[in-house]
Amino acid sequence: MATLIPITDPADERLGDYVRLRDVSLRRSLEAEQGLFIAEGEKVIRRACEAGYEPRSFLLAERWIAGLRPILDRLDVPVYVVDEALAERVTGFHVHRGALASMKRATRWSMTELLDARRLVVCEDIVDHTNVGAIIRCTAALGWDGVLLAPRAADPLYRRAVKTSMGAVFFLPWARMDDWGGGLETLKRAGFTVAAMALREDAVTLDAFAADLAAEPRKVALLMGTEGGGLSSHWLAQADVVVRIPMARGIDSLNVAAAAAVACYTLRER
Amino acid sequence: MATLIPITDPADERLGDYVRLRDVSLRRSLEAEQGLFIAEGEKVIRRACEAGYEPRSFLLAERWIAGLRPILDRLDVPVYVVDEALAERVTGFHVHRGALASMKRATRWSMTELLDARRLVVCEDIVDHTNVGAIIRCTAALGWDGVLLAPRAADPLYRRAVKTSMGAVFFLPWARMDDWGGGLETLKRAGFTVAAMALREDAVTLDAFAADLAAEPRKVALLMGTEGGGLSSHWLAQADVVVRIPMARGIDSLNVAAAAAVACYTLRER
Repeated sequence: MATLIPITDPADERLGDYVRLRDVSLRRSLEAEQGLFIAEGEKVIRRACEAGYEPRSFLLAERWIAGLRPILDRLDVPVYVVDEALAERVTGFHVHRGALASMKRATRWSMTELLDARRLVVCEDIVDHTNVGAIIRCTAALGWDGVLLAPRAADPLYRRAVKTSMGAVFFLPWARMDDWGGGLETLKRAGFTVAAMALREDAVTLDAFAADLAAEPRKVALLMGTEGGGLSSHWLAQADVVVRIPMARGIDSLNVAAAAAVACYTLRER
Repeated sequence: MATLIPITDPADERLGDYVRLRDVSLRRSLEAEQGLFIAEGEKVIRRACEAGYEPRSFLLAERWIAGLRPILDRLDVPVYVVDEALAERVTGFHVHRGALASMKRATRWSMTELLDARRLVVCEDIVDHTNVGAIIRCTAALGWDGVLLAPRAADPLYRRAVKTSMGAVFFLPWARMDDWGGGLETLKRAGFTVAAMALREDAVTLDAFAADLAAEPRKVALLMGTEGGGLSSHWLAQADVVVRIPMARGIDSLNVAAAAAVACYTLRER
């Protein structure tokens, strides 16, 4: 059974996993060094545990203990019990949901394992954690098989990605590509049609590509580019097909997560 | 021509429009009282001006002046020039894009004007400003005609909604419904098929509804519910049809903005 440990000193070293959660560069190095990630909110914490991730510790306000009791009872890890003001001082923000857990990182899937899939989303250098989380949530919800991330794409286990995904990052297979230059070639050799989402005039429309896939079913790897800049010319040049969602009213683009949702729905296997 | 006014005191009263931008409840009352909203980033500021919104003042770091010069030259409003540290002290966060404008609020469309539309998204009590902004951006980009907001839905002119919409809130017609109880009746009388998005077992699938609309074209008002709770039972009971996006892998839902994007794309008029 987990041990409840009241803490009243914000400088207490046992809270080291939870410091300055809004400081992205600090958290990146701290979490990589310590091999941890942060799950926030009762539902997300529960899903992480159900998916087999191991908690290192919990940081809870008193009133959240009851809801997590079934999980805490099965575990032998420290549960730091703090008031909300102290949680705010340590983490640097008001923890609305009052419940945080520090979990052990684990690499659960490899790119090689994902090559058997039929439908993959491939994120190039998407830097916003909420976009990566939202893409993983909709990829999973809409029945696609997994997500590949280029070397510089944002970390799916970063707190805000985890939260935006509502825990889908724990279940949907995803993996980091280690070779940005040659990764698409690997996908092609594995039988994928590499389709790049880009708002180019000469791109085929999403509906035309969907009709093409319905007539001749194939494996699809769908490339999504950086917020703002879109896909690199290196990746665009390698794509088998460039696909666009027609834009109305002079709007220059959809948000990348919205575009992924529309494309995943329209191109799903039926 | 706008007047450049260097300011070095964070307590300077002339910066009153820009204080504590992250304090939602303070900003709500301050912006309503003063009749203002905040536009953030050069692109969004430019779009607000192009759409005819009038600036009250600008808050700029030195290096942003050049980019906004064509706009500033046409205006007769104060431009407060500050360094980034001072901007951070006043606003309460690091202003990445260095450019803020305080703009005069204006009500540009009414619900009555929107009743001539063919395709409307109707947001019930969506509370997250980024969701409202994202919904307005995708509604506009995917060729729908406008957005209606229930009385308690988040404000499209709140800074984060404006930013997430990338300025689409300035161009796409949207209006506040003043009657939550009777609003759907007004839509029906105006000839809309009221379609509620909800993950109910007995709902028709999005594809089935799209096929139905293709066979028999109609005006559609698409109801989107609160994050978490979804649509109220009062609205669900009044819908002509309940529509769902089938979910895979036990994922319990899509984010409301992703669901709106998928539905707007699939149900658009062609």
